[in-house]
Amino acid sequence: MTTVNAFAALAAKESLAAYAYEAAPLGAHEAEIAISHCGVCHSDLHLIDNDWSSSTYPLVPGHEIVGTVAEVGPACRLATGQRVGVGWQRSSCHDCELCRAGHENLCLRQEATCVGHMGGFADRIRTDERFVFPLPAELDAAAAAPLLCGGVTVFAPLRRWAVRPGARVGVIGIGGLGHLALQFLKAMGCHATAFTSSPDKRAEAARLGASDAVSSTTPREIRAQANRFDFLLCTAPARLDWITYLQTLKPNGVLCLVGAPPGLMQIPAGQLLSAQRVICGSDIGSPADIREMLAFAAQHGIGAEVETAPMADVNRALLRVRENRVRYRMVLTNR
Amino acid sequence: MTTVNAFAALAAKESLAAYAYEAAPLGAHEAEIAISHCGVCHSDLHLIDNDWSSSTYPLVPGHEIVGTVAEVGPACRLATGQRVGVGWQRSSCHDCELCRAGHENLCLRQEATCVGHMGGFADRIRTDERFVFPLPAELDAAAAAPLLCGGVTVFAPLRRWAVRPGARVGVIGIGGLGHLALQFLKAMGCHATAFTSSPDKRAEAARLGASDAVSSTTPREIRAQANRFDFLLCTAPARLDWITYLQTLKPNGVLCLVGAPPGLMQIPAGQLLSAQRVICGSDIGSPADIREMLAFAAQHGIGAEVETAPMADVNRALLRVRENRVRYRMVLTNR
Repeated sequence: MTTVNAFAALAAKESLAAYAYEAAPLGAHEAEIAISHCGVCHSDLHLIDNDWSSSTYPLVPGHEIVGTVAEVGPACRLATGQRVGVGWQRSSCHDCELCRAGHENLCLRQEATCVGHMGGFADRIRTDERFVFPLPAELDAAAAAPLLCGGVTVFAPLRRWAVRPGARVGVIGIGGLGHLALQFLKAMGCHATAFTSSPDKRAEAARLGASDAVSSTTPREIRAQANRFDFLLCTAPARLDWITYLQTLKPNGVLCLVGAPPGLMQIPAGQLLSAQRVICGSDIGSPADIREMLAFAAQHGIGAEVETAPMADVNRALLRVRENRVRYRMVLTNR
Repeated sequence: MTTVNAFAALAAKESLAAYAYEAAPLGAHEAEIAISHCGVCHSDLHLIDNDWSSSTYPLVPGHEIVGTVAEVGPACRLATGQRVGVGWQRSSCHDCELCRAGHENLCLRQEATCVGHMGGFADRIRTDERFVFPLPAELDAAAAAPLLCGGVTVFAPLRRWAVRPGARVGVIGIGGLGHLALQFLKAMGCHATAFTSSPDKRAEAARLGASDAVSSTTPREIRAQANRFDFLLCTAPARLDWITYLQTLKPNGVLCLVGAPPGLMQIPAGQLLSAQRVICGSDIGSPADIREMLAFAAQHGIGAEVETAPMADVNRALLRVRENRVRYRMVLTNR
């Protein structure tokens, strides 16, 4: 028996409390990971608060996990002591058309690391090795943890939509996801424009890789970008003025959502027809995307800018995330 | 001087009247075409009625033109007597990034055949040879006329989005555009499903190339198609239940609009995110698309099913189009 020492919400919107549970027996394809770091994603707050009506309690959040392999099941190809990462997805069916085509992230029978399973705000986790990724040696553990969810969420659509060197890309929202997108885009040779509501982030955008920055709360500034972008990556789960943003796209340009704004988007079809514009969503990334993203991050020295806190200070850390005060990602540590 | 005998609306929503005008001198790159056939597109009604606030009068509609070259300018590479077609687009700048990339149909300085110019409800027209297309010998003139606008409008997005043999494609609206889409899809080896509000068209769908047909006015029938289509081509410029239609798309599926529904589309972003669905528009096609479409139609024996009427009966013909009684395209003739 392995006892896992975790932090759990015992009911919706409650503070997390120390919570120990006995791990299920290690499956053939599973690995047990001794967790060193776990990033805090806004999704963790939504799960704690049961915003998506999918939460069950006790709920152990956490899905941006870095650690070392402590034990392996008989069919697991990982090695004990290996440094690895785990992201949002825990499993897929490996049998459907989507899984066979390498789109495991779209499998209808997928399971998530911390939905119906105990997540990474803990000292260890047992999970399917097919969603456990060896970390390149160049990556710092704390800076790499947010890559496992936030990183691949912005990297995968840039690859799937074949965003090319020289492309003009707007990144809406410069937070945990957006600050990684700016780094990836700079390394890809794109011209990135940061749209942010925070004046101080406008000043920081250049350091993060942006060519320029625009106030996302000043319609006049957004309108001045008309017909400019090949690709708009929206990381802000907020109601925006979609008509104005669509007009910033060139013909054949793509608006890609990676965060779900509440309610219904109001879209004039004429904006899509007259310039063949595209609106789409992107949902994390496949295991192949995650491997490619980690190799790319290692090659180009990309990592999250993080604030760390001991796992025991999880409630203080969550409050800082709720208050949008972290620049740019909170990472809990077990050191 | 060449006098053109045309039919024109002299004011918005008026019946057309015989209208003669002197053609402008033939430009270096222009050809004069003796018109044998001209299709009637719903866009012609919108222009007559000034629905898009772009119309100037006298207005000679008509942009699905077939005829023979009667005279050529000094730089024109067409030959007198050659059988040709002309579609919606009359010109582009040939100089911008889009034109140079072969996306002339998205050029911001493009002009249309019958917007600000005299169109094809006439005995002749003078127009830029770069938007005049030799007709393959296999194509019947009357059946080919609607290919020049309606045909390429449905063909181009199937090519641009790389719809593959075996793909499951829904076609919403089986009219002038939809009945051509079903023929193209069958020839491409796709499984096409017709969505139509007309019970008799459901029965005809198989003859036109569809694998099956669904009532577009019965929500239960649409819902039964959940998670089925790789591509949905919407030819109906109507407000539809987009949420239900989006749910008929597989993950990574594409909803492509080729007709503009009025008002705002209401789209829940979660429908785009969770299965990486795509919404886009498509606007006619480039000259290269038109040439490929004509060759494909000739190879596969594809043409519009038409009802013909003498050009002099234009008002009776327009009425039948307005009343949605034509199966499937009205073509005016100068014989």
